[in-house]
Formats: sequence, C-alpha cells, structure tokens
Amino acid sequence: MSEPETAKAGTRADEGASLGARIMRRLDELAQYSSEPGALTRLYLSPEHKAATVQVAAWMRDAGMTTELDAAASVVGRYEGAESGMPALLLGSHIDTVRNAGRYDGNFGVVAAIEAVAAFHSRGERLPFAIEVIAFGDEEGVRFPVTLTGARAVAGILDLAALDAEDADGVSVREALRRFGCDPFALPHIARRRKDVFGYVEMHIEQGPVLEAENLPVGVVSAINGASRFAAEVEGVAGHAGTVPMRLRHDAVAAMSEMVLAVERTALETPDLVATVGWVEASPGAVNVIPAHARFTIDLRSPDDRVRKAAAERLARDLQAVAARRGVGLALRAGYDAPALTCAPALADALERSVARLGIRPLRLSSGAGHDGLAIGALCPVGMLFVRCEGGISHNPREAVTEADADVATRILLDFLRTFDPHRAPSAAAVTP
Amino acid sequence: MSEPETAKAGTRADEGASLGARIMRRLDELAQYSSEPGALTRLYLSPEHKAATVQVAAWMRDAGMTTELDAAASVVGRYEGAESGMPALLLGSHIDTVRNAGRYDGNFGVVAAIEAVAAFHSRGERLPFAIEVIAFGDEEGVRFPVTLTGARAVAGILDLAALDAEDADGVSVREALRRFGCDPFALPHIARRRKDVFGYVEMHIEQGPVLEAENLPVGVVSAINGASRFAAEVEGVAGHAGTVPMRLRHDAVAAMSEMVLAVERTALETPDLVATVGWVEASPGAVNVIPAHARFTIDLRSPDDRVRKAAAERLARDLQAVAARRGVGLALRAGYDAPALTCAPALADALERSVARLGIRPLRLSSGAGHDGLAIGALCPVGMLFVRCEGGISHNPREAVTEADADVATRILLDFLRTFDPHRAPSAAAVTP
Repeated sequence: MSEPETAKAGTRADEGASLGARIMRRLDELAQYSSEPGALTRLYLSPEHKAATVQVAAWMRDAGMTTELDAAASVVGRYEGAESGMPALLLGSHIDTVRNAGRYDGNFGVVAAIEAVAAFHSRGERLPFAIEVIAFGDEEGVRFPVTLTGARAVAGILDLAALDAEDADGVSVREALRRFGCDPFALPHIARRRKDVFGYVEMHIEQGPVLEAENLPVGVVSAINGASRFAAEVEGVAGHAGTVPMRLRHDAVAAMSEMVLAVERTALETPDLVATVGWVEASPGAVNVIPAHARFTIDLRSPDDRVRKAAAERLARDLQAVAARRGVGLALRAGYDAPALTCAPALADALERSVARLGIRPLRLSSGAGHDGLAIGALCPVGMLFVRCEGGISHNPREAVTEADADVATRILLDFLRTFDPHRAPSAAAVTP
Repeated sequence: MSEPETAKAGTRADEGASLGARIMRRLDELAQYSSEPGALTRLYLSPEHKAATVQVAAWMRDAGMTTELDAAASVVGRYEGAESGMPALLLGSHIDTVRNAGRYDGNFGVVAAIEAVAAFHSRGERLPFAIEVIAFGDEEGVRFPVTLTGARAVAGILDLAALDAEDADGVSVREALRRFGCDPFALPHIARRRKDVFGYVEMHIEQGPVLEAENLPVGVVSAINGASRFAAEVEGVAGHAGTVPMRLRHDAVAAMSEMVLAVERTALETPDLVATVGWVEASPGAVNVIPAHARFTIDLRSPDDRVRKAAAERLARDLQAVAARRGVGLALRAGYDAPALTCAPALADALERSVARLGIRPLRLSSGAGHDGLAIGALCPVGMLFVRCEGGISHNPREAVTEADADVATRILLDFLRTFDPHRAPSAAAVTP
C-alpha cells in the first residue's frame, strides 16, 4: 500500500493513517469485554455484551450520533443527513463473539463504521441521506439455538417463537432480553419500513484465505452462503466396558464417530459445500461405561441452496443407515436454516468503483460465513466489503487484520458513502432473490 | 430353583428364602445414597459415599462385627473366630458406583457378606478363623483417574503418588480423604500382613451374559481380566465452519472420530479383547467453529496380558498414523494398568464344591470386569463367585438380580464358610501370577 498521498489529497489528514490506528486501538479496547480472562468470549445478552453496548453507544455519541438500545439489544446510532428525518443507509455488523474468539469478526465492521461517521462529524459534513450504524448482538448463535435475532427484528422477519429458545441453563431468549433491560413485546415495532432505508452495507473480515492468496486488502462480496444447522442425538445401550462382547454392543459414541466421518465425507465429495461437527457430548461419560447417549451438531453451508438441501437429505439418509446398522436410535432435528443471499449488484458495483478509486484491483468473492445481511436482505438491498485476515483464520484468538488494511477498507467506505446516490439505489424487489 | 427344603434341612429357616429378601431390601435402601435424585451415582469420597459407610457400618454391628473406617475410607467389619485375634478370611466388594449406576454392582457383595455373618451371629456360631467384611470405596475409578485405592492399601501395594491424582474440580485424593475424615498419613499402616489373612473371597454380579445363557444362578471365576486405560488428546486448528475449505481443515473432532473407530475395529479384530471409548469432549464446542481440541478415554481389557499389551501398541501406532495423516497432534497418556489375575485354584475348587452341594451345576468363567481382587491378589489367594444378572446389563439403572439368585448365592457362601479349612488354604506364592 502507498495510499497516504492519495488519502491526503482527497480527505483530511486525520482520516488517513490515523483512521486505521484508531480502529485497531478501539478493537483492542472492545476485546476487554469478555467473560474469560485472557480470552475473548462475549455471548448474546451476557453481562459482557451489556458492557460492550455501553462502550459502543459512547463511541457513537462521540461521532455525533443519537443512540438507542433497541428491543433486540442492538445498539443503533443515527447520524442525520442534510435534513433531519431523511431515509437512512444502514451500516453495521455484530458485537457478539464465539467462545475464545478473535477480536475482528463483527466488531471490525461496527468500529470502522463509527469511525467513518466520526470523519463526517468532525468536519460537520452532512450527506443527502441519514446513516444508521447498528451493532447487532446475536450473529454467532452460540448461546441460544437461534441466531440473527437483531437483524431479523430490524428486517421484520423475526419469528417470535424464537424467543422461547433456551440456553444451556434453561434461560429463554425472552427472559434474557428482559434481564438485559429490553422489552420483548416491543420487538415487532423495531422492524423498519422499506421506504425508510436505502440499503445495508457491512464491512467484515473475510474469515477465509482468498484475499490473502490474491494479495488484496479488500474484496466485494457477491453472495452470502446459505446455512443449515442440525442437532443429532444417538441413543444406544449403556453397559460395562469389560463384559459386553464387542458384537453385542450398541455404543452411542462409536455410532456418532461413524456419523461424524459421514458428515465430513459428504462435504469432501460435494463441490461448494462445507460441513462441520463443532460440538459433541457423550453420557454417562465414564471411562469404563459403554456410552448410552451421544449428541452432536451439524453445520452445512453452500452458496447454492439446492446443493445444501440435497446434502442435508443425503446426510439424513446416510446417518439413519449408520444408526440402523448399529442398532441405535437417531433423532435429527433441523435448527437454524438460512437461504443464500445474492448481494445487490448496484451496491456491489458502487463498492467496486470506490475500491478502484483507491487504486486497488477489484475482486468479487462469495462469503462462506453467514452475516447479519442474510436477514437484512429481506428488507432492503445488501452490500458487503470483505477485509483480508491473516491466514484466513477466524473464530480463533489468532484472528488478525493489519492496521493498513483496516485503514484502506475504511477509506473505501468513506469514498462509497460520499459518492452514494440514494436515488439511484436499487429497489428491494429487484435484488432480493 | 427348588432349594427351600434343602435349606431348611441344612440351616435355620431364616437363612432360607428370607436371606435373599433381606438382601434385596437392603440393596434398595443403600441405593438411596445417591448424588442424583431418581438415579444412583455414588462416587468415591462424596457425601453420599460417607452416608453409605455409616449405614454399612451399622449393618455390620447388627451382625455382631466390630467396625472401623480405615485410612482409605473402606468400612471394615470384623467377626471374631473361635478365639479372639485369629487370622481372617476377607470377604467384601465395593460401595462406590459409576454415574447413573445399577444397585447390585459391588453393593451386592458387601450386603450379602454382611448377611452371611449375621447368620452365624444370630446363632452364636464361631468359625476356626475370623471373618472381615470390607466395603471398599474406590473400585470404579470414576471420580479420580486412579482406582482400587482401598484394595491396594489393604494389599500394601498403594503407590502414594496416586494421592496426588485430582478430580475434575482439582481436588486431590489426599485432600478428599482428609475432608472425608480419613488420615492419608495412616495409609501405609492399613496394609495387612500375609500371616494375618487366609484369603479374599468376593461375590459380585457377573455384569455379562454368560450365566444367563447357561441358565445358571452362579458361576466360579477362574480369572479377572487385565485392563489398561489411556487418555487421548487431539490438537487440531480452530476455524470458521463456513469459510475454511474442507481440504485445509485440521478438525480435532473428525480426527477423534476416526480414532474411536480404530479403537473399535482393533477390538473387533482381536479375540479376547474388548475396547471402549466411554468419554469424549471437544472444544471450543460451538456449532459454527471447527474444533481445535478433542479429548477421549480408551479402556482395553483382556484375560491375556500379552493380547492387551499388543493391542495397546497397535492402537498407539494406528492412532498416531491417523493424527499424522490429518495434520493434528496426538498425546496418548497411559493411566490405570492392571495385569490379569488368576483366581486361587484351591478357593475356586472349594467354592465349586459348595455350588455342587446346593444342587447347582458348577461352571467356571473369566471376569471381563476388573474387581478389588485384582489388587488383593498381591496379598493373598483370591476367590470369586459370580451371580447372574438380567441380560448381562450392568453400569446401567436396568441392572437386575433376582431375589432367588441372591438367596442361593449367599447360601453357597455360607456353605463355603462353614466348610472352609484355613489350614488347607493355599499360600499366596502358589497362586499369585
């Protein structure tokens, strides 16, 4: 990168190199809000999530925004346009994390968007549209068996049955929202009207290896992969580890192991599909007892919904065949299910023009990870800009973004916002699949 | 069974059918000492174990025994012989359980031995040797990564390093003994001298399907299988479940699954070997994160020590090969390791004569499960009598013994004790392998 000259020519100096540095400092600061010392874990509606919303709202106010905590525990900061009450372009990402997470996933998009607004605020610059920065709280879906609660609520597609979902301690989303200080009854009222929003643009780390391989700091997202999650429960027969002959066993862990390998094999054999068993458990769980029960999760992702559906059907058949052969029971419950989302071509084109104006070769790529935009796509056009992360590593403390990349990505967002023409923004009907 | 007449002829009526009924009632009563309502879980040195020792000691005193809680938390009840201070024949079993256990494993042998002594006591009958009934507390090895602590201490082969072993909460055996009211420093002093004991005889449920298949209430044990336990830890690389291509993953759960199936296959392909993976865990353990770590246990058993050692070596090679191919790390730590034990032929012959005198066809079988006798064998000759259990099911709430079988087994023990000639008992050197 050697853009400082370009940056100085087009913007004030403090939007230049210092933008990236400030973003990195704030991300380090935000990473302190964790339930684990020495690691980052910040689950939806946890005390650490609460503390993070307070910090994010303070930064939003510093950047000239009015703020509110909405009914789904998203922090919403609004920066008025040239006139008060104009329709808004939504920016944002999420501030919840997986367990033992990296500090850039989600948080980068929120902090960078606030810095972009701060740049306009510092010079009293107003745009022909309002900007709203939203820090969603439930993108990872780790605490509860539901996800995208905040984005679905904003998009008006939240199934209120999701509020009954419970965490491992039996606390429902509804109850956790109340304890957090949110009013679950107000959730239907935070849905936006189509005429009040021009679109949603999110910056996010790539969480994959493509940009690094292409030696590019950023890329424009063409589509977000669809995802299906399943909870599997195997029921075998407990027995003494020393006395039951091998051929008479109905071992739940051995059956689960064969199923895990079937999941892996399906993904290895299917182009455009990844599949993961991220959680396993066996009971009673003693060294000298043949396990009676085993439980595990399955996560399937594909940019092609037909590929994902076909894989889910094949897996259901294959896993039931394993269960039948081993004489164990198998219950397979479908959970989270989100179709793939095609990003709005008009927003992708505009982002790409901003990328090119900063002297960077434009590249389009699809997103293997799900994002809040999956839900927002039901409301309005969605655009996404990916930022390179080291080794493609994410959901891991080794997740890393360089200050230079953070800087150039945010300057691309500034360019995009300055040149965005809300009256040429595409209609939702034209872009949502 | 139609032994009531025989029983009445040879013994008082209350040693007949009522023996079995009283044993079943006491086993039901003992099963109430559990850390889980509606299930039986009684781990070594837990509050429930403490309560059970108090109950067992009370029953022992009712049966005319003096009692003490020894330094390893075993309850020892002594019934003097014709003269005070005579060498003793040891009877007993254990009163700790696995999680969600059956009520007969271990507890049956303790309760039945107490009833046998009660039968002598009720008529003031003294034998030419003392009887000591020992209720061991650590046969299952569930709470701590060590086992047979009580029996090893009595046999004088307890490695004091085992006291440093910790439970899942970081509490050491030493600390748990202190909290229980036992003095760990006194452990070396509870080792018996060879000249003070004639042998050790244990009744235990079979925990396997042989006696049921042979339509026999009891069988005489020829040998106890040796066992090896291992703790395995797989180290992979965490990553985002949606973005890391399948071929670039180092998924710890997928690797563990392949290893579990290798353990199972080894046992299926090796005669006289069983192998079990009873406990598994993955971390970070989220539906949308490729697991970085996986841990599991391996339990190997065989009546032939060479078979068991060869299997352990083959598995170590096979599992390391899986790890190498998948680019994950594997640490395999050996834990509990006990050689097989041949039961003393003289005791087995004597037990078999008692079986025959009660009109039952004698059958010898080996024990797939480990027992306290594995350790006691280092001190003195060991004999074991197995009692039929329904479906061979054990380590499971469905574990079941009939009242009639409990009755006949205890009358066999009474016959054995009445006819046991301590001066024809074999020397330890002749029977311990």
